[in-house]
Amino acid sequence: MASPQLTSIRSPRVAAARRLAKRAFRSADGRFLAEGPQAVREAAASPGVLIEVFSTAEAAQRHADLLDACQQAGAPVALVSGEVMASIAQTVTPQGIAAVCHRLDVTIDEALAKPPRLVTVLVDARDPGNTGTVIRTADAAGADAIVLTGGSVDPYNGKCVRATAGSIFHVPLVVAGPVEPAVDRLREAGLGILAADGAGDVDLDSALDSGSLERPTAWLFGNEAWGLPDSVRALADAVIRVPIHGRAESLNLAAAAAVCLYASARAHRRSTSRALP
Amino acid sequence: MASPQLTSIRSPRVAAARRLAKRAFRSADGRFLAEGPQAVREAAASPGVLIEVFSTAEAAQRHADLLDACQQAGAPVALVSGEVMASIAQTVTPQGIAAVCHRLDVTIDEALAKPPRLVTVLVDARDPGNTGTVIRTADAAGADAIVLTGGSVDPYNGKCVRATAGSIFHVPLVVAGPVEPAVDRLREAGLGILAADGAGDVDLDSALDSGSLERPTAWLFGNEAWGLPDSVRALADAVIRVPIHGRAESLNLAAAAAVCLYASARAHRRSTSRALP
Repeated sequence: MASPQLTSIRSPRVAAARRLAKRAFRSADGRFLAEGPQAVREAAASPGVLIEVFSTAEAAQRHADLLDACQQAGAPVALVSGEVMASIAQTVTPQGIAAVCHRLDVTIDEALAKPPRLVTVLVDARDPGNTGTVIRTADAAGADAIVLTGGSVDPYNGKCVRATAGSIFHVPLVVAGPVEPAVDRLREAGLGILAADGAGDVDLDSALDSGSLERPTAWLFGNEAWGLPDSVRALADAVIRVPIHGRAESLNLAAAAAVCLYASARAHRRSTSRALP
Repeated sequence: MASPQLTSIRSPRVAAARRLAKRAFRSADGRFLAEGPQAVREAAASPGVLIEVFSTAEAAQRHADLLDACQQAGAPVALVSGEVMASIAQTVTPQGIAAVCHRLDVTIDEALAKPPRLVTVLVDARDPGNTGTVIRTADAAGADAIVLTGGSVDPYNGKCVRATAGSIFHVPLVVAGPVEPAVDRLREAGLGILAADGAGDVDLDSALDSGSLERPTAWLFGNEAWGLPDSVRALADAVIRVPIHGRAESLNLAAAAAVCLYASARAHRRSTSRALP
Protein backbone atom coordinates (compact mmCIF):
# COMPACT_ATOMS: atom_id res chain seq x y z
CA MET A 1 0.00 0.00 0.00
CA ALA A 2 1.40 3.43 -0.94
CA SER A 3 2.37 5.63 1.95
CA PRO A 4 0.48 8.90 2.48
CA GLN A 5 1.89 12.04 0.86
CA LEU A 6 0.11 14.36 3.24
CA THR A 7 0.32 13.54 6.93
CA SER A 8 0.08 16.98 8.51
CA ILE A 9 -3.22 18.67 9.17
CA ARG A 10 -1.24 21.94 8.97
CA SER A 11 -0.36 21.46 5.29
CA PRO A 12 -1.73 24.45 3.33
CA ARG A 13 -3.63 22.19 0.90
CA VAL A 14 -5.26 20.36 3.79
CA ALA A 15 -6.10 23.62 5.56
CA ALA A 16 -7.60 24.97 2.31
CA ALA A 17 -9.88 21.92 2.05
CA ARG A 18 -10.78 22.00 5.72
CA ARG A 19 -11.94 25.60 5.67
CA LEU A 20 -14.65 24.65 3.15
CA ALA A 21 -16.70 23.46 6.14
CA LYS A 22 -17.57 27.14 6.64
CA ARG A 23 -20.01 28.95 4.34
CA ALA A 24 -17.98 32.19 4.31
CA PHE A 25 -14.90 30.37 3.02
CA ARG A 26 -16.92 28.39 0.45
CA SER A 27 -18.23 31.72 -0.87
CA ALA A 28 -14.84 33.42 -0.81
CA ASP A 29 -13.11 30.49 -2.53
CA GLY A 30 -15.93 29.55 -4.92
CA ARG A 31 -15.31 25.94 -3.89
CA PHE A 32 -16.95 23.18 -1.91
CA LEU A 33 -16.16 19.71 -0.64
CA ALA A 34 -17.72 16.55 -2.09
CA GLU A 35 -17.33 13.59 0.27
CA GLY A 36 -17.51 9.88 -0.37
CA PRO A 37 -17.02 7.78 -3.51
CA GLN A 38 -20.48 8.46 -4.98
CA ALA A 39 -20.12 12.25 -4.85
CA VAL A 40 -16.51 12.18 -6.07
CA ARG A 41 -17.55 9.96 -9.00
CA GLU A 42 -20.23 12.47 -10.00
CA ALA A 43 -17.75 15.33 -9.66
CA ALA A 44 -15.22 13.53 -11.87
CA ALA A 45 -17.92 13.00 -14.50
CA SER A 46 -18.80 16.73 -14.50
CA PRO A 47 -16.47 18.65 -16.83
CA GLY A 48 -14.40 21.35 -15.15
CA VAL A 49 -15.67 20.68 -11.63
CA LEU A 50 -12.95 18.66 -9.92
CA ILE A 51 -10.00 20.60 -8.47
CA GLU A 52 -8.22 18.19 -6.13
CA VAL A 53 -8.88 14.80 -4.55
CA PHE A 54 -7.83 13.45 -1.16
CA SER A 55 -7.88 9.75 -0.40
CA THR A 56 -6.67 7.51 2.38
CA ALA A 57 -4.50 4.58 1.26
CA GLU A 58 -7.29 2.14 2.18
CA ALA A 59 -9.87 4.03 0.09
CA ALA A 60 -7.36 4.28 -2.79
CA GLN A 61 -7.15 0.47 -2.87
CA ARG A 62 -10.93 0.10 -2.73
CA HIS A 63 -11.60 2.80 -5.35
CA ALA A 64 -8.60 2.55 -7.69
CA ASP A 65 -10.80 3.02 -10.79
CA LEU A 66 -12.36 6.12 -9.34
CA LEU A 67 -8.99 7.71 -8.56
CA ASP A 68 -7.88 6.91 -12.13
CA ALA A 69 -10.99 8.68 -13.40
CA CYS A 70 -10.16 11.68 -11.21
CA GLN A 71 -6.64 11.87 -12.62
CA GLN A 72 -7.99 11.53 -16.16
CA ALA A 73 -10.29 14.44 -15.33
CA GLY A 74 -7.12 16.43 -14.65
CA ALA A 75 -7.34 16.52 -10.86
CA PRO A 76 -4.31 15.72 -8.69
CA VAL A 77 -4.93 12.95 -6.16
CA ALA A 78 -3.18 13.16 -2.78
CA LEU A 79 -2.91 10.18 -0.49
CA VAL A 80 -3.52 11.36 3.06
CA SER A 81 -3.31 9.89 6.53
CA GLY A 82 -6.47 8.99 8.41
CA GLU A 83 -5.87 11.97 10.68
CA VAL A 84 -5.73 14.36 7.72
CA MET A 85 -8.91 12.86 6.21
CA ALA A 86 -10.69 13.25 9.54
CA SER A 87 -9.63 16.90 9.66
CA ILE A 88 -10.94 17.60 6.13
CA ALA A 89 -14.12 15.54 6.29
CA GLN A 90 -17.35 17.11 7.50
CA THR A 91 -18.79 13.73 8.47
CA VAL A 92 -18.26 11.87 11.73
CA THR A 93 -17.36 8.67 9.88
CA PRO A 94 -15.39 9.76 6.80
CA GLN A 95 -15.55 7.45 3.79
CA GLY A 96 -11.85 7.97 3.04
CA ILE A 97 -12.23 10.02 -0.13
CA ALA A 98 -13.13 13.66 -0.66
CA ALA A 99 -12.80 16.16 -3.49
CA VAL A 100 -12.46 19.92 -3.62
CA CYS A 101 -14.81 21.11 -6.38
CA HIS A 102 -15.60 24.36 -8.16
CA ARG A 103 -19.07 25.58 -7.26
CA LEU A 104 -21.65 24.46 -9.79
CA ASP A 105 -24.31 27.13 -9.91
CA VAL A 106 -25.15 28.99 -13.09
CA THR A 107 -27.09 32.19 -13.78
CA ILE A 108 -30.83 31.94 -14.21
CA ASP A 109 -30.41 32.81 -17.90
CA GLU A 110 -27.97 29.95 -18.37
CA ALA A 111 -30.33 27.57 -16.57
CA LEU A 112 -33.24 28.61 -18.79
CA ALA A 113 -31.31 28.58 -22.08
CA LYS A 114 -33.21 25.47 -23.22
CA PRO A 115 -37.01 25.92 -22.96
CA PRO A 116 -37.80 24.49 -19.51
CA ARG A 117 -40.76 22.33 -18.64
CA LEU A 118 -40.30 21.84 -14.89
CA VAL A 119 -38.41 24.10 -12.48
CA THR A 120 -38.16 23.82 -8.69
CA VAL A 121 -37.88 27.05 -6.69
CA LEU A 122 -37.04 27.01 -2.99
CA VAL A 123 -37.91 30.11 -0.98
CA ASP A 124 -36.14 30.51 2.38
CA ALA A 125 -35.52 26.76 2.75
CA ARG A 126 -33.29 26.54 5.81
CA ASP A 127 -32.67 22.87 6.50
CA PRO A 128 -29.73 21.49 4.50
CA GLY A 129 -31.00 17.90 4.64
CA ASN A 130 -34.44 18.88 3.35
CA THR A 131 -32.92 21.07 0.65
CA GLY A 132 -30.63 18.30 -0.54
CA THR A 133 -33.53 15.85 -0.60
CA VAL A 134 -35.57 18.28 -2.71
CA ILE A 135 -32.66 18.62 -5.16
CA ARG A 136 -32.44 14.82 -5.41
CA THR A 137 -36.20 14.50 -5.90
CA ALA A 138 -36.28 17.32 -8.48
CA ASP A 139 -33.56 15.51 -10.43
CA ALA A 140 -35.52 12.24 -10.26
CA ALA A 141 -38.71 13.99 -11.43
CA GLY A 142 -36.82 15.39 -14.43
CA ALA A 143 -36.62 19.04 -13.37
CA ASP A 144 -34.74 21.31 -15.78
CA ALA A 145 -33.42 23.63 -13.07
CA ILE A 146 -33.43 24.28 -9.33
CA VAL A 147 -33.54 27.88 -8.12
CA LEU A 148 -32.71 28.77 -4.52
CA THR A 149 -34.06 32.18 -3.53
CA GLY A 150 -34.37 34.43 -0.51
CA GLY A 151 -32.56 33.26 2.58
CA SER A 152 -32.26 29.65 1.45
CA VAL A 153 -29.47 27.50 2.86
CA ASP A 154 -26.14 27.29 1.02
CA PRO A 155 -26.51 24.25 -1.27
CA TYR A 156 -22.78 23.55 -0.82
CA ASN A 157 -23.28 22.84 2.88
CA GLY A 158 -21.88 19.33 3.38
CA LYS A 159 -25.13 17.94 4.75
CA CYS A 160 -27.02 19.31 1.73
CA VAL A 161 -24.49 17.92 -0.76
CA ARG A 162 -24.75 14.48 0.88
CA ALA A 163 -28.57 14.56 0.90
CA THR A 164 -28.58 15.21 -2.87
CA ALA A 165 -26.91 11.78 -3.34
CA GLY A 166 -25.07 13.14 -6.39
CA SER A 167 -27.98 15.08 -7.89
CA ILE A 168 -26.33 18.43 -7.14
CA PHE A 169 -24.04 17.54 -10.07
CA HIS A 170 -26.94 16.71 -12.42
CA VAL A 171 -29.40 19.58 -12.55
CA PRO A 172 -28.60 23.23 -13.36
CA LEU A 173 -28.61 25.02 -10.01
CA VAL A 174 -29.22 28.74 -9.57
CA VAL A 175 -28.42 30.61 -6.38
CA ALA A 176 -30.70 33.59 -6.94
CA GLY A 177 -31.26 36.52 -4.64
CA PRO A 178 -34.77 37.80 -3.98
CA VAL A 179 -37.64 35.64 -5.20
CA GLU A 180 -39.60 38.26 -7.17
CA PRO A 181 -37.17 38.93 -10.06
CA ALA A 182 -36.49 35.18 -10.28
CA VAL A 183 -40.23 34.51 -10.68
CA ASP A 184 -40.48 37.25 -13.32
CA ARG A 185 -37.68 35.60 -15.27
CA LEU A 186 -39.31 32.15 -14.97
CA ARG A 187 -42.58 33.56 -16.27
CA GLU A 188 -40.76 35.17 -19.23
CA ALA A 189 -39.38 31.70 -19.99
CA GLY A 190 -42.96 30.52 -20.52
CA LEU A 191 -43.48 28.80 -17.19
CA GLY A 192 -46.70 28.91 -15.20
CA ILE A 193 -46.01 29.66 -11.53
CA LEU A 194 -47.56 27.36 -8.92
CA ALA A 195 -47.01 27.86 -5.20
CA ALA A 196 -47.25 24.80 -2.95
CA ASP A 197 -48.82 25.64 0.38
CA GLY A 198 -50.88 23.74 2.92
CA ALA A 199 -53.36 26.63 2.91
CA GLY A 200 -53.73 26.67 -0.90
CA ASP A 201 -57.11 27.27 -2.57
CA VAL A 202 -56.85 24.40 -5.05
CA ASP A 203 -56.02 20.85 -4.15
CA LEU A 204 -53.44 18.99 -6.19
CA ASP A 205 -55.94 16.36 -7.38
CA SER A 206 -58.25 19.07 -8.74
CA ALA A 207 -55.29 20.74 -10.43
CA LEU A 208 -54.41 17.42 -12.09
CA ASP A 209 -58.03 16.82 -13.13
CA SER A 210 -58.39 20.31 -14.63
CA GLY A 211 -55.31 19.88 -16.81
CA SER A 212 -53.61 22.89 -15.27
CA LEU A 213 -50.48 20.86 -14.48
CA GLU A 214 -49.90 20.08 -18.15
CA ARG A 215 -48.28 23.39 -19.03
CA PRO A 216 -44.61 24.03 -18.24
CA THR A 217 -44.44 24.86 -14.53
CA ALA A 218 -42.20 26.40 -11.92
CA TRP A 219 -43.13 25.20 -8.43
CA LEU A 220 -42.45 27.46 -5.44
CA PHE A 221 -41.83 25.69 -2.13
CA GLY A 222 -41.46 27.57 1.16
CA ASN A 223 -39.70 27.29 4.45
CA GLU A 224 -39.98 24.07 6.51
CA ALA A 225 -41.69 25.79 9.44
CA TRP A 226 -43.69 28.70 8.09
CA GLY A 227 -44.32 27.89 4.41
CA LEU A 228 -44.57 30.68 1.86
CA PRO A 229 -45.21 34.28 2.90
CA ASP A 230 -48.30 36.03 1.47
CA SER A 231 -46.11 38.22 -0.73
CA VAL A 232 -44.67 35.14 -2.46
CA ARG A 233 -48.00 33.33 -2.74
CA ALA A 234 -49.29 36.48 -4.49
CA LEU A 235 -46.69 35.99 -7.26
CA ALA A 236 -48.17 32.62 -8.27
CA ASP A 237 -50.88 31.83 -10.80
CA ALA A 238 -52.39 29.46 -8.24
CA VAL A 239 -51.65 28.25 -4.72
CA ILE A 240 -51.95 24.46 -4.60
CA ARG A 241 -52.28 22.30 -1.51
CA VAL A 242 -51.42 18.64 -1.32
CA PRO A 243 -54.60 17.15 0.16
CA ILE A 244 -54.33 15.90 3.75
CA HIS A 245 -56.55 12.82 3.95
CA GLY A 246 -55.61 11.85 7.51
CA ARG A 247 -54.94 13.85 10.66
CA ALA A 248 -51.40 15.11 9.89
CA GLU A 249 -51.13 18.87 10.19
CA SER A 250 -48.95 19.09 7.11
CA LEU A 251 -46.38 17.27 5.02
CA ASN A 252 -42.71 17.96 5.40
CA LEU A 253 -41.12 20.07 2.68
CA ALA A 254 -39.36 17.22 0.87
CA ALA A 255 -42.45 14.98 0.88
CA ALA A 256 -44.70 17.79 -0.41
CA ALA A 257 -42.18 18.59 -3.14
CA ALA A 258 -42.02 14.91 -4.15
CA VAL A 259 -45.79 14.69 -4.55
CA CYS A 260 -46.08 17.99 -6.47
CA LEU A 261 -43.10 17.45 -8.78
CA TYR A 262 -44.18 13.92 -9.66
CA ALA A 263 -47.73 15.13 -10.31
CA SER A 264 -46.28 17.61 -12.84
CA ALA A 265 -43.99 14.99 -14.37
CA ARG A 266 -46.97 12.69 -14.89
CA ALA A 267 -49.17 15.46 -16.31
CA HIS A 268 -46.42 16.56 -18.73
CA ARG A 269 -45.85 13.05 -20.02
CA ARG A 270 -49.57 12.30 -20.37
CA SER A 271 -50.13 15.50 -22.33
CA THR A 272 -47.17 14.63 -24.56
CA SER A 273 -48.47 11.13 -25.23
CA ARG A 274 -51.93 12.51 -26.03
CA ALA A 275 -50.38 14.98 -28.48
CA LEU A 276 -48.65 12.19 -30.45
CA PRO A 277 -50.38 11.19 -33.70
CA MET B 1 -43.48 32.59 38.12
CA ALA B 2 -43.85 29.35 40.10
CA SER B 3 -40.63 27.87 41.39
CA PRO B 4 -39.54 24.44 40.10
CA GLN B 5 -40.61 21.38 42.08
CA LEU B 6 -37.85 19.20 40.67
CA THR B 7 -34.36 20.65 40.64
CA SER B 8 -32.21 17.53 40.96
CA ILE B 9 -31.25 15.43 38.00
CA ARG B 10 -30.90 12.59 40.51
CA SER B 11 -34.59 12.59 41.38
CA PRO B 12 -36.01 9.11 40.61
CA ARG B 13 -38.79 10.56 38.40
CA VAL B 14 -36.23 12.53 36.40
CA ALA B 15 -33.93 9.52 36.07
CA ALA B 16 -36.89 7.40 34.93
CA ALA B 17 -37.65 9.92 32.16
CA ARG B 18 -34.01 10.30 31.20
CA ARG B 19 -33.44 6.59 30.69
CA LEU B 20 -36.08 6.61 27.92
CA ALA B 21 -33.32 7.92 25.63
CA LYS B 22 -32.19 4.27 25.39
CA ARG B 23 -34.14 1.70 23.37
CA ALA B 24 -33.61 -1.07 25.91
CA PHE B 25 -35.22 0.99 28.67
CA ARG B 26 -38.07 2.13 26.40
CA SER B 27 -38.80 -1.54 25.72
CA ALA B 28 -38.46 -2.60 29.35
CA ASP B 29 -40.68 0.23 30.60
CA GLY B 30 -43.18 0.26 27.70
CA ARG B 31 -42.79 4.04 27.67
CA PHE B 32 -41.31 6.78 25.52
CA LEU B 33 -40.67 10.50 25.68
CA ALA B 34 -42.61 13.05 23.62
CA GLU B 35 -40.81 16.38 23.43
CA GLY B 36 -42.08 19.83 22.63
CA PRO B 37 -45.54 21.42 22.83
CA GLN B 38 -46.84 19.89 19.57
CA ALA B 39 -46.07 16.31 20.59
CA VAL B 40 -47.30 16.82 24.16
CA ARG B 41 -50.57 18.29 22.82
CA GLU B 42 -51.09 15.20 20.64
CA ALA B 43 -50.28 12.93 23.58
CA ALA B 44 -52.79 14.73 25.81
CA ALA B 45 -55.45 14.32 23.12
CA SER B 46 -54.80 10.56 22.89
CA PRO B 47 -56.79 8.68 25.57
CA GLY B 48 -54.66 6.72 28.05
CA VAL B 49 -51.32 7.75 26.60
CA LEU B 50 -50.01 10.48 28.88
CA ILE B 51 -48.24 9.38 32.07
CA GLU B 52 -46.37 12.42 33.36
CA VAL B 53 -45.40 15.87 32.08
CA PHE B 54 -42.30 17.95 32.81
CA SER B 55 -42.19 21.66 32.08
CA THR B 56 -39.85 24.52 32.83
CA ALA B 57 -41.47 27.53 34.48
CA GLU B 58 -40.96 29.56 31.29
CA ALA B 59 -42.68 26.92 29.12
CA ALA B 60 -45.47 26.63 31.70
CA GLN B 61 -46.21 30.34 31.26
CA ARG B 62 -46.13 30.08 27.47
CA HIS B 63 -48.23 26.89 27.34
CA ALA B 64 -50.61 27.27 30.31
CA ASP B 65 -53.58 25.89 28.30
CA LEU B 66 -51.60 22.85 27.26
CA LEU B 67 -50.58 22.04 30.84
CA ASP B 68 -54.24 22.40 31.88
CA ALA B 69 -55.15 19.92 29.14
CA CYS B 70 -52.49 17.52 30.44
CA GLN B 71 -53.88 17.72 33.98
CA GLN B 72 -57.41 17.20 32.67
CA ALA B 73 -56.08 14.12 30.89
CA GLY B 74 -55.08 12.86 34.36
CA ALA B 75 -51.32 13.39 34.05
CA PRO B 76 -49.35 15.06 36.83
CA VAL B 77 -47.33 18.09 35.68
CA ALA B 78 -43.98 18.76 37.37
CA LEU B 79 -42.23 22.10 37.06
CA VAL B 80 -38.53 21.45 36.58
CA SER B 81 -35.37 23.49 36.44
CA GLY B 82 -33.64 24.14 33.12
CA GLU B 83 -30.89 21.74 34.17
CA VAL B 84 -33.40 18.94 34.82
CA MET B 85 -35.13 19.59 31.46
CA ALA B 86 -31.77 19.46 29.69
CA SER B 87 -31.02 16.11 31.36
CA ILE B 88 -34.37 14.61 30.28
CA ALA B 89 -34.55 16.08 26.79
CA GLN B 90 -33.07 14.20 23.85
CA THR B 91 -32.69 17.41 21.82
CA VAL B 92 -29.81 19.85 21.97
CA THR B 93 -32.19 22.79 22.34
CA PRO B 94 -35.05 21.55 24.52
CA GLN B 95 -38.41 23.26 24.04
CA GLY B 96 -39.09 23.27 27.79
CA ILE B 97 -41.85 20.67 27.83
CA ALA B 98 -41.74 16.89 27.61
CA ALA B 99 -44.09 14.04 28.43
CA VAL B 100 -43.58 10.44 29.42
CA CYS B 101 -46.07 8.39 27.38
CA HIS B 102 -47.26 4.79 27.22
CA ARG B 103 -46.14 3.16 23.98
CA LEU B 104 -48.82 3.36 21.30
CA ASP B 105 -48.45 0.29 19.15
CA VAL B 106 -51.25 -2.21 18.73
CA THR B 107 -51.37 -5.75 17.38
CA ILE B 108 -51.82 -6.23 13.67
CA ASP B 109 -55.30 -7.65 14.33
CA GLU B 110 -56.27 -4.52 16.24
CA ALA B 111 -54.90 -2.32 13.46
CA LEU B 112 -56.90 -4.20 10.83
CA ALA B 113 -60.15 -4.41 12.81
CA LYS B 114 -61.80 -1.93 10.42
CA PRO B 115 -61.44 -2.97 6.75
CA PRO B 116 -58.28 -1.13 5.65
CA ARG B 117 -57.79 0.60 2.32
CA LEU B 118 -54.17 1.78 2.61
CA VAL B 119 -51.42 0.33 4.80
CA THR B 120 -47.73 1.30 4.91
CA VAL B 121 -45.21 -1.43 5.70
CA LEU B 122 -41.57 -0.62 6.43
CA VAL B 123 -39.04 -3.44 6.06
CA ASP B 124 -35.68 -2.94 7.79
CA ALA B 125 -35.97 0.88 7.75
CA ARG B 126 -33.02 1.99 9.84
CA ASP B 127 -32.97 5.78 9.80
CA PRO B 128 -35.20 7.28 12.50
CA GLY B 129 -35.68 10.57 10.63
CA ASN B 130 -36.76 8.80 7.43
CA THR B 131 -39.04 6.48 9.38
CA GLY B 132 -40.69 9.37 11.19
CA THR B 133 -41.18 11.22 7.92
CA VAL B 134 -42.81 8.14 6.36
CA ILE B 135 -45.18 7.89 9.35
CA ARG B 136 -46.09 11.58 8.93
CA THR B 137 -46.60 11.16 5.17
CA ALA B 138 -48.66 7.97 5.63
CA ASP B 139 -50.91 9.85 8.05
CA ALA B 140 -51.29 12.72 5.56
CA ALA B 141 -52.12 10.27 2.75
CA GLY B 142 -54.84 8.71 4.91
CA ALA B 143 -53.17 5.40 5.71
CA ASP B 144 -55.16 3.11 8.01
CA ALA B 145 -52.10 1.57 9.65
CA ILE B 146 -48.32 1.57 9.66
CA VAL B 147 -46.50 -1.73 10.15
CA LEU B 148 -42.80 -1.84 11.04
CA THR B 149 -41.23 -5.21 10.27
CA GLY B 150 -37.87 -6.91 10.27
CA GLY B 151 -35.03 -4.95 11.78
CA SER B 152 -36.78 -1.58 11.48
CA VAL B 153 -35.77 1.23 13.83
CA ASP B 154 -37.63 1.69 17.11
CA PRO B 155 -40.41 4.18 16.27
CA TYR B 156 -40.13 5.59 19.81
CA ASN B 157 -36.59 6.82 19.12
CA GLY B 158 -36.73 10.56 19.88
CA LYS B 159 -35.60 11.57 16.41
CA CYS B 160 -38.32 9.40 14.85
CA VAL B 161 -41.02 10.75 17.16
CA ARG B 162 -40.01 14.33 16.28
CA ALA B 163 -39.95 13.60 12.54
CA THR B 164 -43.54 12.31 12.73
CA ALA B 165 -44.61 15.84 13.80
CA GLY B 166 -47.40 14.33 15.91
CA SER B 167 -48.51 11.68 13.42
CA ILE B 168 -47.21 8.85 15.60
CA PHE B 169 -50.25 9.60 17.78
CA HIS B 170 -52.71 9.49 14.84
CA VAL B 171 -52.32 6.26 12.89
CA PRO B 172 -52.49 2.73 14.34
CA LEU B 173 -48.88 1.57 14.56
CA VAL B 174 -47.81 -2.08 14.58
CA VAL B 175 -44.35 -3.20 15.63
CA ALA B 176 -44.36 -6.58 13.91
CA GLY B 177 -41.58 -9.12 13.79
CA PRO B 178 -40.70 -10.86 10.53
CA VAL B 179 -42.26 -9.47 7.38
CA GLU B 180 -43.74 -12.69 5.94
CA PRO B 181 -46.48 -13.41 8.53
CA ALA B 182 -47.34 -9.70 8.55
CA VAL B 183 -47.83 -9.77 4.76
CA ASP B 184 -49.97 -12.91 5.05
CA ARG B 185 -52.18 -11.16 7.58
CA LEU B 186 -52.48 -8.04 5.37
CA ARG B 187 -53.51 -10.21 2.42
CA GLU B 188 -56.15 -11.94 4.58
CA ALA B 189 -57.50 -8.48 5.33
CA GLY B 190 -58.20 -8.06 1.61
CA LEU B 191 -55.20 -5.92 0.72
CA GLY B 192 -53.20 -6.22 -2.48
CA ILE B 193 -49.47 -6.21 -1.75
CA LEU B 194 -47.28 -3.80 -3.72
CA ALA B 195 -43.53 -3.55 -3.19
CA ALA B 196 -41.83 -0.23 -4.00
CA ASP B 197 -38.39 -0.76 -5.49
CA GLY B 198 -36.22 1.16 -7.90
CA ALA B 199 -35.71 -2.07 -9.85
CA GLY B 200 -39.44 -2.82 -10.10
CA ASP B 201 -40.97 -4.28 -13.30
CA VAL B 202 -43.90 -1.87 -13.47
CA ASP B 203 -43.64 1.88 -13.28
CA LEU B 204 -46.01 3.78 -11.03
CA ASP B 205 -47.60 5.69 -13.91
CA SER B 206 -48.46 2.42 -15.68
CA ALA B 207 -49.85 1.02 -12.45
CA LEU B 208 -52.06 4.11 -12.11
CA ASP B 209 -53.18 3.88 -15.76
CA SER B 210 -54.02 0.18 -15.48
CA GLY B 211 -56.29 0.77 -12.48
CA SER B 212 -54.26 -1.58 -10.32
CA LEU B 213 -53.86 1.05 -7.60
CA GLU B 214 -57.61 1.28 -7.09
CA ARG B 215 -57.91 -1.79 -4.91
CA PRO B 216 -57.05 -1.64 -1.19
CA THR B 217 -53.27 -1.79 -0.97
CA ALA B 218 -50.44 -2.45 1.46
CA TRP B 219 -47.20 -0.85 0.25
CA LEU B 220 -43.88 -2.42 1.24
CA PHE B 221 -40.92 -0.02 1.47
CA GLY B 222 -37.36 -1.21 2.06
CA ASN B 223 -34.16 -0.08 3.67
CA GLU B 224 -32.68 3.35 2.79
CA ALA B 225 -29.49 1.88 1.33
CA TRP B 226 -30.32 -1.52 -0.10
CA GLY B 227 -34.08 -1.47 -0.76
CA LEU B 228 -36.11 -4.66 -0.46
CA PRO B 229 -34.46 -8.10 -0.49
CA ASP B 230 -35.55 -10.57 -3.20
CA SER B 231 -37.35 -12.70 -0.62
CA VAL B 232 -39.58 -9.75 0.30
CA ARG B 233 -40.17 -8.63 -3.29
CA ALA B 234 -41.33 -12.18 -3.96
CA LEU B 235 -44.15 -11.73 -1.42
CA ALA B 236 -45.71 -8.89 -3.43
CA ASP B 237 -48.34 -9.03 -6.18
CA ALA B 238 -46.21 -6.55 -8.14
CA VAL B 239 -42.96 -4.65 -7.70
CA ILE B 240 -43.49 -1.00 -8.64
CA ARG B 241 -40.81 1.57 -9.41
CA VAL B 242 -41.27 5.30 -9.20
CA PRO B 243 -40.04 6.44 -12.65
CA ILE B 244 -36.73 8.31 -12.66
CA HIS B 245 -37.05 10.96 -15.38
CA GLY B 246 -33.71 12.66 -14.71
CA ARG B 247 -30.27 11.37 -13.77
CA ALA B 248 -30.83 10.63 -10.06
CA GLU B 249 -29.90 7.10 -9.15
CA SER B 250 -32.90 6.73 -6.89
CA LEU B 251 -35.30 8.58 -4.63
CA ASN B 252 -34.83 8.62 -0.91
CA LEU B 253 -37.15 6.38 1.08
CA ALA B 254 -39.44 9.13 2.37
CA ALA B 255 -39.80 10.77 -1.07
CA ALA B 256 -40.57 7.43 -2.76
CA ALA B 257 -43.13 6.62 -0.07
CA ALA B 258 -44.76 10.05 -0.52
CA VAL B 259 -45.17 9.54 -4.27
CA CYS B 260 -46.50 5.97 -3.95
CA LEU B 261 -48.88 6.61 -1.05
CA TYR B 262 -50.35 9.71 -2.70
CA ALA B 263 -50.76 7.80 -5.98
CA SER B 264 -52.82 5.22 -4.07
CA ALA B 265 -54.80 7.88 -2.22
CA ARG B 266 -55.69 9.51 -5.54
CA ALA B 267 -56.59 6.20 -7.20
CA HIS B 268 -58.80 5.18 -4.25
CA ARG B 269 -60.68 8.47 -4.26
CA ARG B 270 -61.16 8.47 -8.04
CA SER B 271 -62.52 4.94 -7.99
CA THR B 272 -64.89 5.90 -5.15
CA SER B 273 -66.16 8.96 -7.00
CA ARG B 274 -66.69 6.88 -10.17
CA ALA B 275 -68.69 4.35 -8.16
CA LEU B 276 -71.12 7.01 -6.91
CA PRO B 277 -74.45 7.15 -8.77
